[in-house]
Amino acid sequence: MEKIEGNLLIIGGAEDKEKDCTILREFVKLAGSGEAKIVIMPTAADQPEAVGKLYNSLFKDLGVRDVEVLKIESRYDAFSKVAQKTIEEATGVFFTGGDQLKITSLLGGTPVDFSLQRAYKSGVVIAGTSAGAAAMSATMIIGGNSDSSPQMGILNMAPGMALFNQVVIDQHFAQRGRLGRLISAVAQNPYILGIGIDEDTAILVDAQANLKVIGSQTVTIVDGYNSSYTNVSELRPKQALAITDAVVHILPNGYRFDLKNRKPVTD
Amino acid sequence: MEKIEGNLLIIGGAEDKEKDCTILREFVKLAGSGEAKIVIMPTAADQPEAVGKLYNSLFKDLGVRDVEVLKIESRYDAFSKVAQKTIEEATGVFFTGGDQLKITSLLGGTPVDFSLQRAYKSGVVIAGTSAGAAAMSATMIIGGNSDSSPQMGILNMAPGMALFNQVVIDQHFAQRGRLGRLISAVAQNPYILGIGIDEDTAILVDAQANLKVIGSQTVTIVDGYNSSYTNVSELRPKQALAITDAVVHILPNGYRFDLKNRKPVTD
Repeated sequence: MEKIEGNLLIIGGAEDKEKDCTILREFVKLAGSGEAKIVIMPTAADQPEAVGKLYNSLFKDLGVRDVEVLKIESRYDAFSKVAQKTIEEATGVFFTGGDQLKITSLLGGTPVDFSLQRAYKSGVVIAGTSAGAAAMSATMIIGGNSDSSPQMGILNMAPGMALFNQVVIDQHFAQRGRLGRLISAVAQNPYILGIGIDEDTAILVDAQANLKVIGSQTVTIVDGYNSSYTNVSELRPKQALAITDAVVHILPNGYRFDLKNRKPVTD
Repeated sequence: MEKIEGNLLIIGGAEDKEKDCTILREFVKLAGSGEAKIVIMPTAADQPEAVGKLYNSLFKDLGVRDVEVLKIESRYDAFSKVAQKTIEEATGVFFTGGDQLKITSLLGGTPVDFSLQRAYKSGVVIAGTSAGAAAMSATMIIGGNSDSSPQMGILNMAPGMALFNQVVIDQHFAQRGRLGRLISAVAQNPYILGIGIDEDTAILVDAQANLKVIGSQTVTIVDGYNSSYTNVSELRPKQALAITDAVVHILPNGYRFDLKNRKPVTD
C-alpha cells in the first residue's frame, strides 16, 4: 500500500442523521469543528438541490457556520474558477450518495478534480457516503448483483477518482449481501484490498495508511494477496468463481487496520 | 474433523428441478440409480403432502421405481415400527425444505432418528435441501437476520441431527446475504467450520471427510481456526462483531475440500 496522502472518511451509506450523528460529527471535527469550511458535493445525487440542503442543515446543526453546496451539473461547471476556489478554501469536502458515474464523468480530469487532489494532499478531509464512497478508489464498482454468488460478469467497474489506491470499496455491504461481488473484484487482482463498508459505518484513513472503523456496523476487509488459487482468468460470463485461502477481517467501531502491512491492529 | 461415517448430500435449497436436475440426479446415482429405494422425508415442510408428491414424481422421472414418502407428523409416528423399517430398507433418504426445528423436534431421539443414524453409518446416502440441509449439523442455525452485519444475537441456534459434526451449515447463502450470520456462528467457536451453500448448489461429503461441490453456484467455507482475534465473548446483543484473519474459500462445481485438514484440494 502506497503512502496515503491525506485524510479520507469513507462511509457505507445511510449514516445516522438523527441520533448521535457519530460519523457526520467525526467529519466536522476533522474539518476543524466550528472553524471548518465545509463544501458539500451533491454531484452524484439525483436531486442535488434537496440532498445539498439536507447536509447543509445537518452540518449547521453540528456547529459549522461556513457550509457551502457546490453544484456541478456539467463538465463546464467543473472548469469554473469560482468552483476551484471554493474547493481550495475548504477544510472538508463531503460527497453525497447517488450514482458514482456522475461524479467521475462530471469531474474526472477537470480543474475541480485537480483542486480536490491538491486539497486532499494538503490535508483537507475528503468524505464520501454510498456512491461518494465507491468513487474514492482508483477502480470503482459501478454496478453488479447484490445477494449473488461470486461469479464472472456480476460486476461492472470503471476508473474512479483515485484518492484511495490499491483498494476496491463496496458500500451498503452487509445490508445488500455484497460479499460475492467484492470477492469477485479481489480475485481479479489479489493485490487490491477489498473493503466492504456497512451502512452507518465508515473508515477513516490517514496519511500514514492507518484505517480506523467508526460507526454502528462493521467493515469487511477481503485480502486475496496470499490466496492459493483462483480460476478467475478461465471463466466465462456467469460461471461461478473459485478462490481459496482469502483472508477476511471483520472490524467494528474503534478497530484499526494497517493498510501498509495488510494487518489488523489489535493492541 | 472426525471421520465422517457415510455419504451426505447437503443442498443449499432451490435445486434445479426442471432442466438438468444435476443435484437430484447425483442423489439418485448415489442411492443406486434404477435399483435405488428412496425415502422422502417432508418432515420440515409446511405442506408435507404436496412437497412429498413433488419429489416423488421428480425421482420417478429420474428412473427410480421404488420411491416412498414417509410422513412423520408427530413424535408418535416416529416410534412406529413401519417407519423404522422403511428407513432401514432405504438406499437413499431425502429431507425436503421447510422448518429445521420440525425435523429435530419430531425426530430427535426417536427410533426413526436411530434408524437414520444406523442407515447413515452403513453407507446409505442422506440428502437434505434448505431446512433439510441446516438440520444436518450438530448445532444448527434456526434463524437469524440475513443481509446483516456480523453481530451478537442475530443468530438463533439449536441442537441438530448431528449427522455432520464440527460444522455449521447455512443455506440460500449468497442469495440471502448470510455471511454475517455464518461468521457470527464461527466466531463463537472457531473450531467449527462454517459452510455456506448457495442455491442450486450442494456439497457431497463422503466417509473419508472429503467434500465436493456440485451445482451451478458456490460454497463458501469460513475457517476461523487460525483467526488471531475475536471480541465475541465480550459482546452484548446487537453489538457488532470483530474477527481477524478468518480464512475464506469460495468453491464452485467440481472443487473439493479436505475436511480433515481444512484445506482445499486444488490438484
